[in-house]
Amino acid sequence: MTSSVAIIGGTGQLGAAIARRLVKAGRTVIIGSRDVAKATATAAALGAELGRTVDSATNLDAAARGELVIVTVPFANQEATLREIAPQVRGKIVVDTTVPLVPPKVMRVQLPPEGSAALRAQQALGEGVRVVSAFHNVAAHKLATDEAVACDVLVFGDEKAAREEVLQVVEDCGLRGLHAGALANSAAAEALTSVLIFINKHYAADGAGLQITGAAPSAH
Amino acid sequence: MTSSVAIIGGTGQLGAAIARRLVKAGRTVIIGSRDVAKATATAAALGAELGRTVDSATNLDAAARGELVIVTVPFANQEATLREIAPQVRGKIVVDTTVPLVPPKVMRVQLPPEGSAALRAQQALGEGVRVVSAFHNVAAHKLATDEAVACDVLVFGDEKAAREEVLQVVEDCGLRGLHAGALANSAAAEALTSVLIFINKHYAADGAGLQITGAAPSAH
Repeated sequence: MTSSVAIIGGTGQLGAAIARRLVKAGRTVIIGSRDVAKATATAAALGAELGRTVDSATNLDAAARGELVIVTVPFANQEATLREIAPQVRGKIVVDTTVPLVPPKVMRVQLPPEGSAALRAQQALGEGVRVVSAFHNVAAHKLATDEAVACDVLVFGDEKAAREEVLQVVEDCGLRGLHAGALANSAAAEALTSVLIFINKHYAADGAGLQITGAAPSAH
Repeated sequence: MTSSVAIIGGTGQLGAAIARRLVKAGRTVIIGSRDVAKATATAAALGAELGRTVDSATNLDAAARGELVIVTVPFANQEATLREIAPQVRGKIVVDTTVPLVPPKVMRVQLPPEGSAALRAQQALGEGVRVVSAFHNVAAHKLATDEAVACDVLVFGDEKAAREEVLQVVEDCGLRGLHAGALANSAAAEALTSVLIFINKHYAADGAGLQITGAAPSAH
Protein backbone atom coordinates (compact mmCIF):
# COMPACT_ATOMS: atom_id res chain seq x y z
CA MET A 1 0.00 0.00 0.00
CA THR A 2 1.26 3.44 -0.85
CA SER A 3 1.48 6.24 1.67
CA SER A 4 -0.96 9.13 1.85
CA VAL A 5 0.60 12.33 0.62
CA ALA A 6 0.15 15.80 2.10
CA ILE A 7 1.00 18.68 -0.19
CA ILE A 8 2.06 21.80 1.68
CA GLY A 9 1.33 24.80 -0.51
CA GLY A 10 -0.91 22.51 -2.53
CA THR A 11 -2.89 25.37 -4.08
CA GLY A 12 0.16 26.64 -5.99
CA GLN A 13 0.86 25.65 -9.57
CA LEU A 14 3.41 22.90 -8.85
CA GLY A 15 1.63 21.56 -5.77
CA ALA A 16 -1.75 21.36 -7.52
CA ALA A 17 -0.18 19.66 -10.55
CA ILE A 18 1.50 17.01 -8.39
CA ALA A 19 -1.73 16.53 -6.41
CA ARG A 20 -3.73 16.03 -9.59
CA ARG A 21 -1.35 13.40 -10.97
CA LEU A 22 -1.17 11.55 -7.65
CA VAL A 23 -4.96 11.47 -7.26
CA LYS A 24 -5.22 10.12 -10.81
CA ALA A 25 -2.72 7.41 -9.86
CA GLY A 26 -4.95 6.40 -6.94
CA ARG A 27 -3.01 7.99 -4.12
CA THR A 28 -4.69 9.52 -1.09
CA VAL A 29 -3.84 13.23 -1.20
CA ILE A 30 -4.38 16.04 1.30
CA ILE A 31 -4.16 19.55 -0.13
CA GLY A 32 -2.64 21.94 2.40
CA SER A 33 -2.61 25.72 2.40
CA ARG A 34 -2.06 28.55 4.86
CA ASP A 35 -5.60 29.49 3.91
CA VAL A 36 -7.90 26.50 4.48
CA ALA A 37 -10.63 28.02 2.29
CA LYS A 38 -8.20 28.03 -0.63
CA ALA A 39 -7.20 24.44 0.09
CA THR A 40 -10.85 23.40 0.15
CA ALA A 41 -11.55 25.15 -3.14
CA THR A 42 -8.57 23.52 -4.87
CA ALA A 43 -9.47 20.08 -3.46
CA ALA A 44 -13.10 20.47 -4.51
CA ALA A 45 -12.19 21.48 -8.06
CA LEU A 46 -9.76 18.59 -8.34
CA GLY A 47 -12.28 16.15 -6.89
CA ALA A 48 -15.00 17.32 -9.27
CA GLU A 49 -12.70 16.99 -12.29
CA LEU A 50 -11.50 13.52 -11.36
CA GLY A 51 -14.64 12.14 -9.74
CA ARG A 52 -12.84 11.53 -6.47
CA THR A 53 -12.89 12.97 -2.98
CA VAL A 54 -9.78 15.00 -2.27
CA ASP A 55 -8.98 16.10 1.25
CA SER A 56 -7.94 19.57 2.34
CA ALA A 57 -6.55 21.14 5.49
CA THR A 58 -4.32 23.89 6.79
CA ASN A 59 -0.65 23.28 6.07
CA LEU A 60 -0.17 22.36 9.72
CA ASP A 61 -2.99 19.80 9.77
CA ALA A 62 -2.03 18.40 6.37
CA ALA A 63 1.55 17.90 7.60
CA ALA A 64 0.24 16.09 10.66
CA ARG A 65 -1.99 13.76 8.64
CA GLY A 66 0.14 12.92 5.60
CA GLU A 67 2.38 9.88 5.84
CA LEU A 68 4.63 11.48 3.26
CA VAL A 69 4.80 15.28 2.97
CA ILE A 70 5.66 17.29 -0.15
CA VAL A 71 6.51 20.96 0.28
CA THR A 72 5.82 23.22 -2.71
CA VAL A 73 6.09 26.78 -1.46
CA PRO A 74 8.08 29.72 -2.86
CA PHE A 75 11.68 30.07 -1.67
CA ALA A 76 10.75 33.20 0.30
CA ASN A 77 8.27 31.17 2.39
CA GLN A 78 10.30 27.96 2.65
CA GLU A 79 12.03 28.43 5.98
CA ALA A 80 9.00 29.75 7.90
CA THR A 81 6.75 27.03 6.49
CA LEU A 82 9.18 24.26 7.39
CA ARG A 83 9.72 25.57 10.92
CA GLU A 84 5.95 25.67 11.34
CA ILE A 85 5.40 22.05 10.28
CA ALA A 86 8.58 20.60 11.82
CA PRO A 87 6.85 19.21 14.95
CA GLN A 88 4.28 17.40 12.75
CA VAL A 89 6.78 15.57 10.52
CA ARG A 90 9.24 13.95 12.93
CA GLY A 91 10.38 10.66 11.41
CA LYS A 92 8.52 11.25 8.14
CA ILE A 93 9.80 11.72 4.63
CA VAL A 94 9.53 15.37 3.63
CA VAL A 95 10.08 16.11 -0.05
CA ASP A 96 11.37 19.62 -0.52
CA THR A 97 10.86 21.00 -4.04
CA THR A 98 12.19 24.49 -3.37
CA VAL A 99 14.24 26.20 -6.02
CA PRO A 100 16.22 29.16 -4.65
CA LEU A 101 15.09 31.73 -7.22
CA VAL A 102 15.81 35.27 -6.11
CA PRO A 103 13.70 37.76 -8.12
CA PRO A 104 14.22 39.74 -10.21
CA LYS A 105 17.28 37.76 -11.39
CA VAL A 106 15.61 34.36 -11.69
CA MET A 107 17.79 33.43 -14.70
CA ARG A 108 20.90 33.72 -12.53
CA VAL A 109 22.03 30.91 -10.22
CA GLN A 110 21.98 32.24 -6.64
CA LEU A 111 22.39 29.32 -4.26
CA PRO A 112 21.78 30.09 -0.58
CA PRO A 113 24.62 30.23 1.98
CA GLU A 114 23.73 26.71 3.15
CA GLY A 115 24.72 25.45 -0.33
CA SER A 116 21.21 24.49 -1.42
CA ALA A 117 17.58 24.95 -0.50
CA ALA A 118 17.48 21.26 0.42
CA LEU A 119 20.23 21.63 3.02
CA ARG A 120 18.39 24.67 4.34
CA ALA A 121 15.26 22.49 4.60
CA GLN A 122 17.14 19.89 6.63
CA GLN A 123 18.36 22.62 8.99
CA ALA A 124 14.88 24.08 9.41
CA LEU A 125 13.25 20.67 9.98
CA GLY A 126 15.95 19.20 12.22
CA GLU A 127 17.78 15.91 12.05
CA GLY A 128 14.84 13.67 12.91
CA VAL A 129 13.18 14.33 9.55
CA ARG A 130 13.98 12.29 6.42
CA VAL A 131 14.49 15.10 3.91
CA VAL A 132 14.51 14.27 0.20
CA SER A 133 14.49 16.84 -2.59
CA ALA A 134 12.99 16.47 -6.06
CA PHE A 135 10.81 18.06 -8.78
CA HIS A 136 13.12 21.07 -9.26
CA ASN A 137 13.29 21.04 -13.05
CA VAL A 138 9.87 20.01 -14.27
CA ALA A 139 7.72 22.80 -15.71
CA ALA A 140 4.60 23.04 -13.52
CA HIS A 141 2.34 24.07 -16.40
CA LYS A 142 3.34 20.90 -18.27
CA LEU A 143 2.88 18.71 -15.20
CA ALA A 144 -0.60 20.18 -14.85
CA THR A 145 -1.70 18.48 -18.09
CA ASP A 146 -2.23 14.82 -18.97
CA GLU A 147 0.60 14.94 -21.51
CA ALA A 148 3.90 13.11 -21.13
CA VAL A 149 6.56 15.50 -19.80
CA ALA A 150 10.04 15.17 -21.32
CA CYS A 151 11.88 15.82 -18.09
CA ASP A 152 13.59 13.46 -15.68
CA VAL A 153 13.34 14.06 -11.95
CA LEU A 154 16.59 13.92 -10.00
CA VAL A 155 15.95 12.65 -6.47
CA PHE A 156 18.38 13.64 -3.72
CA GLY A 157 18.62 12.44 -0.15
CA ASP A 158 21.09 10.98 2.30
CA GLU A 159 19.01 7.84 2.82
CA LYS A 160 18.50 5.44 -0.05
CA ALA A 161 15.25 3.96 1.28
CA ALA A 162 13.69 7.42 1.53
CA ARG A 163 14.78 8.20 -2.04
CA GLU A 164 13.13 4.93 -3.14
CA GLU A 165 9.77 5.97 -1.71
CA VAL A 166 10.02 9.33 -3.45
CA LEU A 167 10.93 7.63 -6.74
CA GLN A 168 7.61 5.81 -6.46
CA VAL A 169 5.82 9.15 -6.04
CA VAL A 170 7.67 10.48 -9.08
CA GLU A 171 6.63 7.46 -11.12
CA ASP A 172 3.03 7.87 -9.95
CA CYS A 173 3.28 11.35 -11.48
CA GLY A 174 4.21 9.73 -14.79
CA LEU A 175 7.80 10.92 -14.67
CA ARG A 176 11.11 9.10 -14.72
CA GLY A 177 13.02 9.54 -11.46
CA LEU A 178 16.67 8.83 -10.81
CA HIS A 179 18.71 8.36 -7.66
CA ALA A 180 20.99 11.42 -7.77
CA GLY A 181 22.94 11.11 -4.54
CA ALA A 182 23.24 12.94 -1.25
CA LEU A 183 21.03 15.85 -0.24
CA ALA A 184 24.02 18.16 -0.83
CA ASN A 185 23.82 17.25 -4.53
CA SER A 186 20.46 18.99 -4.73
CA ALA A 187 22.45 22.15 -5.55
CA ALA A 188 22.87 20.78 -9.08
CA ALA A 189 19.14 20.52 -9.86
CA GLU A 190 18.28 23.71 -8.00
CA ALA A 191 20.88 25.67 -9.98
CA LEU A 192 19.80 24.05 -13.22
CA THR A 193 16.35 25.60 -12.93
CA SER A 194 17.78 29.09 -13.43
CA VAL A 195 19.63 27.71 -16.47
CA LEU A 196 16.38 26.28 -17.86
CA ILE A 197 14.63 29.62 -17.33
CA PHE A 198 17.48 31.28 -19.22
CA ILE A 199 17.19 28.72 -22.03
CA ASN A 200 13.42 29.25 -22.23
CA LYS A 201 14.00 32.96 -22.73
CA HIS A 202 16.99 32.70 -25.05
CA TYR A 203 15.45 30.12 -27.36
CA ALA A 204 11.84 31.33 -26.95
CA ALA A 205 11.02 27.88 -25.56
CA ASP A 206 8.15 26.89 -23.33
CA GLY A 207 9.25 24.61 -20.57
CA ALA A 208 12.71 23.25 -21.38
CA GLY A 209 13.62 20.19 -19.33
CA LEU A 210 16.47 17.75 -18.92
CA GLN A 211 16.94 14.08 -19.58
CA ILE A 212 19.77 11.92 -18.33
CA THR A 213 21.29 9.78 -21.07
CA GLY A 214 23.27 6.58 -20.79
CA ALA A 215 21.86 5.39 -17.47
CA ALA A 216 19.33 2.63 -16.90
CA PRO A 217 16.99 3.96 -14.24
CA SER A 218 14.89 0.83 -14.28
CA ALA A 219 17.77 -0.68 -12.30
CA HIS A 220 16.92 1.12 -9.05
CA MET B 1 37.99 31.67 -40.72
CA THR B 2 38.00 29.93 -37.37
CA SER B 3 40.42 30.79 -34.62
CA SER B 4 43.42 28.66 -33.70
CA VAL B 5 42.85 26.84 -30.43
CA ALA B 6 45.41 26.27 -27.68
CA ILE B 7 44.63 23.49 -25.25
CA ILE B 8 46.20 24.01 -21.84
CA GLY B 9 46.64 20.61 -20.25
CA GLY B 10 46.15 19.11 -23.69
CA THR B 11 47.78 15.81 -22.82
CA GLY B 12 45.01 14.92 -20.36
CA GLN B 13 42.03 12.79 -21.33
CA LEU B 14 39.54 15.63 -21.92
CA GLY B 15 42.08 17.97 -23.53
CA ALA B 16 43.37 15.33 -25.93
CA ALA B 17 39.82 14.31 -26.86
CA ILE B 18 38.83 17.90 -27.66
CA ALA B 19 42.08 18.40 -29.59
CA ARG B 20 41.45 15.30 -31.68
CA ARG B 21 37.92 16.33 -32.61
CA LEU B 22 38.97 19.90 -33.45
CA VAL B 23 41.86 18.74 -35.64
CA LYS B 24 39.46 16.42 -37.45
CA ALA B 25 37.15 19.40 -38.00
CA GLY B 26 40.02 21.27 -39.63
CA ARG B 27 40.93 23.59 -36.77
CA THR B 28 44.50 24.63 -36.02
CA VAL B 29 45.30 23.21 -32.59
CA ILE B 30 48.24 23.73 -30.27
CA ILE B 31 48.67 21.09 -27.56
CA GLY B 32 50.03 22.62 -24.37
CA SER B 33 51.49 20.92 -21.32
CA ARG B 34 53.64 21.83 -18.35
CA ASP B 35 56.00 19.22 -19.80
CA VAL B 36 56.77 20.12 -23.42
CA ALA B 37 58.03 16.60 -24.17
CA LYS B 38 54.61 15.23 -23.22
CA ALA B 39 52.89 17.84 -25.38
CA THR B 40 55.11 16.90 -28.32
CA ALA B 41 54.39 13.20 -27.87
CA THR B 42 50.62 13.75 -27.72
CA ALA B 43 50.70 16.05 -30.75
CA ALA B 44 52.83 13.61 -32.73
CA ALA B 45 50.52 10.68 -31.96
CA LEU B 46 47.47 12.72 -32.92
CA GLY B 47 49.13 13.99 -36.08
CA ALA B 48 50.14 10.47 -37.12
CA GLU B 49 46.62 9.13 -36.54
CA LEU B 50 44.92 11.92 -38.44
CA GLY B 51 47.54 12.59 -41.14
CA ARG B 52 47.95 16.19 -40.02
CA THR B 53 50.57 18.32 -38.35
CA VAL B 54 49.58 19.18 -34.78
CA ASP B 55 51.50 21.82 -32.90
CA SER B 56 52.78 21.53 -29.35
CA ALA B 57 54.26 23.88 -26.77
CA THR B 58 54.52 24.59 -23.07
CA ASN B 59 51.25 25.74 -21.54
CA LEU B 60 52.67 29.27 -21.42
CA ASP B 61 53.69 29.34 -25.08
CA ALA B 62 50.47 27.64 -26.20
CA ALA B 63 48.45 30.27 -24.31
CA ALA B 64 50.44 33.03 -26.03
CA ARG B 65 49.94 31.56 -29.50
CA GLY B 66 46.31 30.36 -29.44
CA GLU B 67 43.66 32.86 -30.51
CA LEU B 68 41.19 30.94 -28.33
CA VAL B 69 42.41 29.07 -25.25
CA ILE B 70 40.78 26.01 -23.65
CA VAL B 71 41.89 25.03 -20.16
CA THR B 72 41.53 21.35 -19.25
CA VAL B 73 43.48 20.84 -16.05
CA PRO B 74 42.42 19.20 -12.78
CA PHE B 75 40.70 21.41 -10.21
CA ALA B 76 43.75 21.20 -7.95
CA ASN B 77 45.92 22.81 -10.67
CA GLN B 78 43.36 25.27 -12.01
CA GLU B 79 44.26 28.40 -10.08
CA ALA B 80 48.04 28.13 -10.47
CA THR B 81 47.74 27.33 -14.18
CA LEU B 82 45.44 30.27 -14.83
CA ARG B 83 47.62 32.70 -12.89
CA GLU B 84 50.60 31.52 -14.95
CA ILE B 85 48.93 32.08 -18.32
CA ALA B 86 46.98 35.24 -17.39
CA PRO B 87 49.46 37.68 -18.99
CA GLN B 88 49.31 35.70 -22.28
CA VAL B 89 45.52 35.75 -22.65
CA ARG B 90 44.51 39.40 -22.14
CA GLY B 91 41.51 40.14 -24.36
CA LYS B 92 41.16 36.50 -25.48
CA ILE B 93 38.40 34.00 -24.93
CA VAL B 94 39.46 31.43 -22.33
CA VAL B 95 37.24 28.38 -22.01
CA ASP B 96 37.43 26.93 -18.54
CA THR B 97 36.31 23.30 -18.32
CA THR B 98 37.14 22.79 -14.66
CA VAL B 99 34.83 20.70 -12.52
CA PRO B 100 35.39 21.24 -8.79
CA LEU B 101 35.73 17.59 -7.82
CA VAL B 102 37.26 17.14 -4.38
CA PRO B 103 38.60 13.58 -3.95
CA PRO B 104 37.80 11.23 -2.43
CA LYS B 105 34.14 12.40 -2.42
CA VAL B 106 33.78 13.03 -6.15
CA MET B 107 30.14 11.90 -6.12
CA ARG B 108 29.30 14.76 -3.75
CA VAL B 109 28.73 18.33 -4.94
CA GLN B 110 31.37 20.56 -3.34
CA LEU B 111 31.29 23.95 -5.02
CA PRO B 112 34.18 26.30 -4.16
CA PRO B 113 33.68 29.42 -1.99
CA GLU B 114 33.61 31.60 -5.13
CA GLY B 115 30.40 29.77 -6.13
CA SER B 116 31.86 27.95 -9.10
CA ALA B 117 35.17 27.01 -10.70
CA ALA B 118 34.30 29.37 -13.55
CA LEU B 119 34.01 32.39 -11.24
CA ARG B 120 37.29 31.32 -9.66
CA ALA B 121 38.79 31.27 -13.17
CA GLN B 122 37.61 34.83 -13.83
CA GLN B 123 39.18 35.94 -10.56
CA ALA B 124 42.49 34.25 -11.35
CA LEU B 125 42.63 35.59 -14.92
CA GLY B 126 41.43 39.11 -14.17
CA GLU B 127 38.72 41.20 -15.75
CA GLY B 128 40.44 41.72 -19.09
CA VAL B 129 39.91 38.08 -20.09
CA ARG B 130 36.72 36.84 -21.76
CA VAL B 131 36.01 33.76 -19.64
CA VAL B 132 33.51 31.18 -20.88
CA SER B 133 32.91 27.78 -19.30
CA ALA B 134 31.82 24.59 -21.03
CA PHE B 135 32.43 20.84 -21.47
CA HIS B 136 31.69 20.01 -17.80
CA ASN B 137 29.37 17.07 -18.36
CA VAL B 138 30.68 15.19 -21.37
CA ALA B 139 32.47 11.92 -20.61
CA ALA B 140 36.05 12.32 -21.88
CA HIS B 141 36.40 8.66 -22.84
CA LYS B 142 33.35 9.01 -25.09
CA LEU B 143 34.56 12.26 -26.60
CA ALA B 144 37.84 10.47 -27.40
CA THR B 145 36.05 8.23 -29.92
CA ASP B 146 34.45 8.99 -33.28
CA GLU B 147 31.03 8.01 -31.96
CA ALA B 148 28.18 10.45 -31.44
CA VAL B 149 28.01 11.49 -27.77
CA ALA B 150 24.51 11.81 -26.27
CA CYS B 151 25.35 14.84 -24.16
CA ASP B 152 24.60 18.52 -24.66
CA VAL B 153 27.19 21.12 -23.71
CA LEU B 154 25.95 24.04 -21.61
CA VAL B 155 27.96 27.16 -22.43
CA PHE B 156 28.22 29.88 -19.77
CA GLY B 157 29.65 33.37 -20.01
CA ASP B 158 28.75 36.98 -19.35
CA GLU B 159 29.30 37.98 -22.99
CA LYS B 160 27.02 36.57 -25.66
CA ALA B 161 29.52 37.05 -28.52
CA ALA B 162 32.13 35.03 -26.62
CA ARG B 163 29.60 32.25 -25.96
CA GLU B 164 28.82 32.20 -29.69
CA GLU B 165 32.45 31.52 -30.56
CA VAL B 166 32.60 28.72 -28.03
CA LEU B 167 29.36 27.24 -29.39
CA GLN B 168 31.16 26.95 -32.72
CA VAL B 169 34.01 25.07 -31.02
CA VAL B 170 31.45 22.77 -29.38
CA GLU B 171 29.79 22.11 -32.75
CA ASP B 172 33.20 21.41 -34.31
CA CYS B 173 33.52 18.72 -31.63
CA GLY B 174 30.29 17.17 -32.94
CA LEU B 175 28.29 18.16 -29.88
CA ARG B 176 25.18 20.27 -29.43
CA GLY B 177 25.90 23.42 -27.43
CA LEU B 178 23.40 25.73 -25.76
CA HIS B 179 23.61 29.26 -24.43
CA ALA B 180 23.14 28.71 -20.70
CA GLY B 181 23.49 32.20 -19.28
CA ALA B 182 25.92 34.11 -17.11
CA LEU B 183 29.24 32.72 -15.90
CA ALA B 184 27.70 32.40 -12.42
CA ASN B 185 25.32 29.79 -13.88
CA SER B 186 28.29 27.48 -14.46
CA ALA B 187 27.66 26.17 -10.93
CA ALA B 188 24.77 24.15 -12.35
CA ALA B 189 26.86 22.18 -14.84
CA GLU B 190 29.82 21.87 -12.48
CA ALA B 191 27.59 20.44 -9.75
CA LEU B 192 25.83 18.16 -12.20
CA THR B 193 29.07 16.33 -12.92
CA SER B 194 29.14 14.91 -9.38
CA VAL B 195 25.53 13.84 -9.90
CA LEU B 196 26.46 12.09 -13.16
CA ILE B 197 29.34 10.30 -11.42
CA PHE B 198 26.87 9.16 -8.75
CA ILE B 199 24.43 7.98 -11.43
CA ASN B 200 27.20 6.08 -13.22
CA LYS B 201 27.98 4.23 -10.01
CA HIS B 202 24.40 3.68 -8.86
CA TYR B 203 23.13 2.40 -12.20
CA ALA B 204 26.41 0.73 -13.26
CA ALA B 205 26.44 3.08 -16.25
CA ASP B 206 29.38 4.15 -18.33
CA GLY B 207 29.29 7.84 -19.07
CA ALA B 208 25.82 9.17 -18.28
CA GLY B 209 25.14 12.57 -19.84
CA LEU B 210 22.38 15.14 -20.07
CA GLN B 211 20.20 16.47 -22.84
CA ILE B 212 18.04 19.57 -22.72
CA THR B 213 14.54 18.95 -24.01
CA GLY B 214 12.01 21.41 -25.34
CA ALA B 215 14.47 24.05 -26.58
CA ALA B 216 15.46 24.75 -30.17
CA PRO B 217 19.18 25.37 -30.05
CA SER B 218 19.38 25.99 -33.78
CA ALA B 219 17.90 29.38 -32.92
CA HIS B 220 21.12 30.82 -31.47
